[in-house]
Amino acid sequence: MNIRNYILKKAEKAKNARLGWTPSDIKNQALLNIADDILENSEKIISENLKDIKNAEKKKLSVSLIDRLRLNNKRIRSMADGLRQVARLPDPVGEVIEGTERPNGLVIEKVRVPLGVIGIIYESRPNVTADSVGLCLKSGNCMVLRGGSEAINSNKILAEIICASAYASGIPEGSIQFIDKTDRKIILQMIQLAEYIDCIIPRGGAGLIEYIRKNSSIPVIAHGKGVCHTFVDRDADIEKAVKISFNAKVQRPGVCNAMETLLVHRNIAERFLPSMISKYKAAGVEIRGCKNTKKIISGIKSATEKDWSAEYLDLVLSVKIVDSIDDAIAHIEKYGSHHSDAIITENEDSAERFLKEVDSSSVYWNASTRFTDGGEFGLGAEIGISTQKMHARGPMGLKELTSYKFVIRGNGQIRE
Amino acid sequence: MNIRNYILKKAEKAKNARLGWTPSDIKNQALLNIADDILENSEKIISENLKDIKNAEKKKLSVSLIDRLRLNNKRIRSMADGLRQVARLPDPVGEVIEGTERPNGLVIEKVRVPLGVIGIIYESRPNVTADSVGLCLKSGNCMVLRGGSEAINSNKILAEIICASAYASGIPEGSIQFIDKTDRKIILQMIQLAEYIDCIIPRGGAGLIEYIRKNSSIPVIAHGKGVCHTFVDRDADIEKAVKISFNAKVQRPGVCNAMETLLVHRNIAERFLPSMISKYKAAGVEIRGCKNTKKIISGIKSATEKDWSAEYLDLVLSVKIVDSIDDAIAHIEKYGSHHSDAIITENEDSAERFLKEVDSSSVYWNASTRFTDGGEFGLGAEIGISTQKMHARGPMGLKELTSYKFVIRGNGQIRE
Repeated sequence: MNIRNYILKKAEKAKNARLGWTPSDIKNQALLNIADDILENSEKIISENLKDIKNAEKKKLSVSLIDRLRLNNKRIRSMADGLRQVARLPDPVGEVIEGTERPNGLVIEKVRVPLGVIGIIYESRPNVTADSVGLCLKSGNCMVLRGGSEAINSNKILAEIICASAYASGIPEGSIQFIDKTDRKIILQMIQLAEYIDCIIPRGGAGLIEYIRKNSSIPVIAHGKGVCHTFVDRDADIEKAVKISFNAKVQRPGVCNAMETLLVHRNIAERFLPSMISKYKAAGVEIRGCKNTKKIISGIKSATEKDWSAEYLDLVLSVKIVDSIDDAIAHIEKYGSHHSDAIITENEDSAERFLKEVDSSSVYWNASTRFTDGGEFGLGAEIGISTQKMHARGPMGLKELTSYKFVIRGNGQIRE
Repeated sequence: MNIRNYILKKAEKAKNARLGWTPSDIKNQALLNIADDILENSEKIISENLKDIKNAEKKKLSVSLIDRLRLNNKRIRSMADGLRQVARLPDPVGEVIEGTERPNGLVIEKVRVPLGVIGIIYESRPNVTADSVGLCLKSGNCMVLRGGSEAINSNKILAEIICASAYASGIPEGSIQFIDKTDRKIILQMIQLAEYIDCIIPRGGAGLIEYIRKNSSIPVIAHGKGVCHTFVDRDADIEKAVKISFNAKVQRPGVCNAMETLLVHRNIAERFLPSMISKYKAAGVEIRGCKNTKKIISGIKSATEKDWSAEYLDLVLSVKIVDSIDDAIAHIEKYGSHHSDAIITENEDSAERFLKEVDSSSVYWNASTRFTDGGEFGLGAEIGISTQKMHARGPMGLKELTSYKFVIRGNGQIRE
């Protein structure tokens, strides 16, 4: 069978499964059963995963990639816990978002419905297979899953367990389609199937996301990069500023909501920077400063133009002294990625201006950018963080995997 | 200046104008002032419009196109009224959609914000210029407007009056960009400027919309076609069925929410169809029936496969007898355009099944599909009706021209 037919068949099966009409209790029980079956089959999963690890080692893939690939009992437990947590969340499908009775007696409700079929294209971490099934299934969406070739054995066994468990629990046959071929050409075919797939969610590196954005004829919800800023205003409380700026950079530098650039108002720079930088240095952070930062702090690298838009995802920080809040906002607008940005200040007017004028998915006053996360925001679960403005912005939970329809009940109304 | 630079400059100016931060009272006063200035300049507008009409006549454009192009005092008054009506609507910008205080004391609000810059590409009707300005300005969006070449003189004078009036009222200079060149290549350039324009709204024929969907690297919200159905169930009240089916087809056949196909349950066909069809014939409706319809009604054309997916926008109706509600739903899924579909029945179970299973932006029980409209739904104003599922679905008002951001206020919180 050629690739085009292969993926077409899968997408067609997903479209015809109509998971959207399945009641909540069946979906929830299925999620709990999948969790149980994953735990029961831990040994099998780990032994399949070992094949992927060995292949990766043979191919001399990076240590961090191999780490992302690896499944152990703890990670398998956390997969199962994730599914159980999603089972406990309220079902978004059928929620009446707005309702009104019109003067002519028509009762109009705006009702939440699934998007339909969601295509998820991801890379090495096999837990994404289980996470995606949890969120899509709960939100009534059928799915076409395409994991990375390096995790193919782990994903295959997971998909096998998940599908068997789901269909035995009453989930319509065909709802979960897993692409078990690793040919990269499948991606290009898949993102052209607008007739069958309603939405593509890419999860992975900037290269993958850019490729999909450019070539997809299906709408994409993408988790973009995070070039996050903390602006220490002239009216900042220095203790808070140090605590927050340290946390935003150091607590987990490899994630998208970690700070990459520290902006400092010139009126506070001499009081704030020396103790801040020495704290960073003690934690092993490499500092790249602007000209004026280097006048205050000696022995640091110079930041180049490229640094201001870099997503380091590492213990590296660029530092810039700015003349005013206007300059800080303009810098964020020019170099940022509209992900998460914070102002540290005791001045309410400055704070409110920053919160209004900085055009990012999440804007903070006196808190760490590290909080941008579905769990931390109380959404319960998260499929990614959108840096786009259409459809969904910021952390995306179950609601962001839905659309709505207008349901109108009448008793013979006609338009005059 | 070459075309690329011309459109780039316009888009850049729109992006830098930052209308999103302008307070409601300034926006509302500007809308009222624009309305006044349009009325005051009626004569000038009509004389420029006459140039377009003469050109259209010289080019022998169709009578209906020339009618859509024409401005008179009544149409100019209705433009002004539309702007005044939008001024009275609540401002969507700044609305707190959801709010929560987290256990750690972070106060998180989901706040409605403008999309940014909206590109609107439209065809002959010059009133779209004023309507678009009204909705975009109120929702805090800067705009790049590209009207049809056949209306260039009318649109130019309207844009001139609107911009002068808006900027004199405190709207940031540059917020409203009108493309005053008619070169069609501008469209292709415009829909590639993803760095400056956040969203493209095409308004016009299916060809224009299809072209833009295919070529745009900017997200599109499109007003798709309307292949709307009315299904007369076996448990229908015949009087209601006749009244609603007649209204849905005949009251205004040239619009997207008019019915194009009548589906009739076989158990009611012989009682319902004869009187229904004679009413249609008396109103000049051409009937194209399926084989079984022709057994009941003589002297009508046969419907071909093409008829089932046709958007006639005219006094033409295809009629099909179906064996069951399942067949009706399957027919709508196969041939419909997910716009507006209705069931006529006194059986609540059948109605609720239809409302749930038909995957359209608006689904009706015992009412005419002609109600799918922003005004009729109580949205106040409408920029189109979306037949897509991402971002906005169904009639789109001010809210659908917005995104949101998360605003987080803390007092020193860091992530542990």
